[in-house]
Amino acid sequence: MKALHFDGRLSLRNLPEPRPASGEALIHVRFAGICGTDLEILKGYSGFRGIPGHEFVGEVVECGEKAWVGKRVVGEINVTCGECDFCRRGLERHCRRRTVMGIVDRDGAFAEFLVLPVRNLHEVPENVTDQAAVFVEPLAAAAEILEQKPIEPGTPVAVLGDGRLGLLVAQVLHRAGARVTVIGRHAWKLDLARSWGISARSLDEGALPQASFPVVVEATGSPRGLAEALRLAEPRGTVVMKSTFHDAARFDTAKLVVDEIALLGSRCGNFAAALDLLRGEKVRVQELVSKTFPLDAGLEAFEYLDQNSCLKVLLAPGTGA
Amino acid sequence: MKALHFDGRLSLRNLPEPRPASGEALIHVRFAGICGTDLEILKGYSGFRGIPGHEFVGEVVECGEKAWVGKRVVGEINVTCGECDFCRRGLERHCRRRTVMGIVDRDGAFAEFLVLPVRNLHEVPENVTDQAAVFVEPLAAAAEILEQKPIEPGTPVAVLGDGRLGLLVAQVLHRAGARVTVIGRHAWKLDLARSWGISARSLDEGALPQASFPVVVEATGSPRGLAEALRLAEPRGTVVMKSTFHDAARFDTAKLVVDEIALLGSRCGNFAAALDLLRGEKVRVQELVSKTFPLDAGLEAFEYLDQNSCLKVLLAPGTGA
Repeated sequence: MKALHFDGRLSLRNLPEPRPASGEALIHVRFAGICGTDLEILKGYSGFRGIPGHEFVGEVVECGEKAWVGKRVVGEINVTCGECDFCRRGLERHCRRRTVMGIVDRDGAFAEFLVLPVRNLHEVPENVTDQAAVFVEPLAAAAEILEQKPIEPGTPVAVLGDGRLGLLVAQVLHRAGARVTVIGRHAWKLDLARSWGISARSLDEGALPQASFPVVVEATGSPRGLAEALRLAEPRGTVVMKSTFHDAARFDTAKLVVDEIALLGSRCGNFAAALDLLRGEKVRVQELVSKTFPLDAGLEAFEYLDQNSCLKVLLAPGTGA
Repeated sequence: MKALHFDGRLSLRNLPEPRPASGEALIHVRFAGICGTDLEILKGYSGFRGIPGHEFVGEVVECGEKAWVGKRVVGEINVTCGECDFCRRGLERHCRRRTVMGIVDRDGAFAEFLVLPVRNLHEVPENVTDQAAVFVEPLAAAAEILEQKPIEPGTPVAVLGDGRLGLLVAQVLHRAGARVTVIGRHAWKLDLARSWGISARSLDEGALPQASFPVVVEATGSPRGLAEALRLAEPRGTVVMKSTFHDAARFDTAKLVVDEIALLGSRCGNFAAALDLLRGEKVRVQELVSKTFPLDAGLEAFEYLDQNSCLKVLLAPGTGA
């Protein structure tokens, strides 16, 4: 099968089709999304080697549990042991022996086919398009914030970063009743937020109000974002950090200590909650798709992402595109 | 009066005795403690200029409210406006217009006399010695952890740092029922913790167990402590950061995000709670006093702290020492 492969360098290859083990399904990938984490993996993040990609929608083409065959699915990215203390405590996403599709020791979705355990799969509701379904994974990650930090309706929340993830986070929190302000550098992305009824503010408008938000979400994807997020947070406030990147971040911890800020790391979330948001058309995702590339042109897709001001770029291994 | 004064350089000076304004008391300082924050101030932390020192016990010698005169007191260090949004929300210690004794825009306790608003004062119970009373401020800061992060009895907690603050934090959390392990570099300090029935472990014993504590308190006073604290914390765990220092800290935020760790900045705490601990003899503080210097020898006290493995060093402006 065709796949993008990373071994320190990304290349398009012909690789053997994976074989599903017992309890696993073979999935023909229809669309896969490129995420900030993928870009960091290409810089060395997590030391990953193999087929990247962890946002996808596809069709089950082979499975011991026949009822799954032919179903349109998305899949949770953490493959867990079910036995360690974290799995037993219900914190499977933190399983001590997990692999993570396209990120840690398990091939991912930038390929024609992938395998995942059946217990990781969720059927996609009929009214959710393929391209929308690709957003389930990042949308779940956005919704995770509310699981970690319940936010009262009316609470002012700054979302720092107007990229793919920032605009999903902004929508999810806006939907939950928060008074969201997206803060970013790109006029057209900020306008998109405004078109959804969400306040937005450009970093070019001058100094941001200091210590003025009880909740700040850092979704810049940059090591510099954290310091800015801390400056925005009011004393005893919460900064939720969503960005993963390869470099270490440097920041003034005195601000964190003196203002007694809670900095919450936040990663993967609940797929069922994200599917509900899409099924109920409660968030806009189609407008976030900037461009779609066939898998053959996967390297160009990464180049495009690097050289253009864009949002989500999709690969389409299984649509004949 | 004699005082230590910092203007980029610490010196012993003769300065005018401060005059109490309405609502303030003039206090004759008996003992003042030197804290890690004071050492950082000498490196430039908070840009402070004036008389440092924020841990003290003294006697009220002049006050409009006559009932205070002659009383032995300790004093809260944040002098607040009582009117801003934080004061009105009951978060006075985060007052937007606060001054902080010996740290921000207000002279402190390394002097024969200081002034503080009467509302900042707490009378010291009779059975608490002068030297013990100096520990009220750092003890309150230690107890603050439990206000921010309730800890179930039996919870494993690592306290990283076997210094002045670490040993207070360890005692407070041990008292609250946590299963505390103090981790540090100094055999004699770790032995002190063990003599109180608290587990202790030397950093020289080799690699620390990774991701194994649900709660970690960072009390090293060093920018490097944070990274180590994050490594000790298990996924979805909490790292409480108590150290303030002048330098920025650098750490791998990917660990924070991937393991969804909550990093809580923690500063000043409740004096009444700390006085209760001392009154009930629930913590050992006298053993933490390494040496006492007369105010005249204040510069030597700082030198001593710099050159010796010690715990708390006291200045004694008002004991004839």
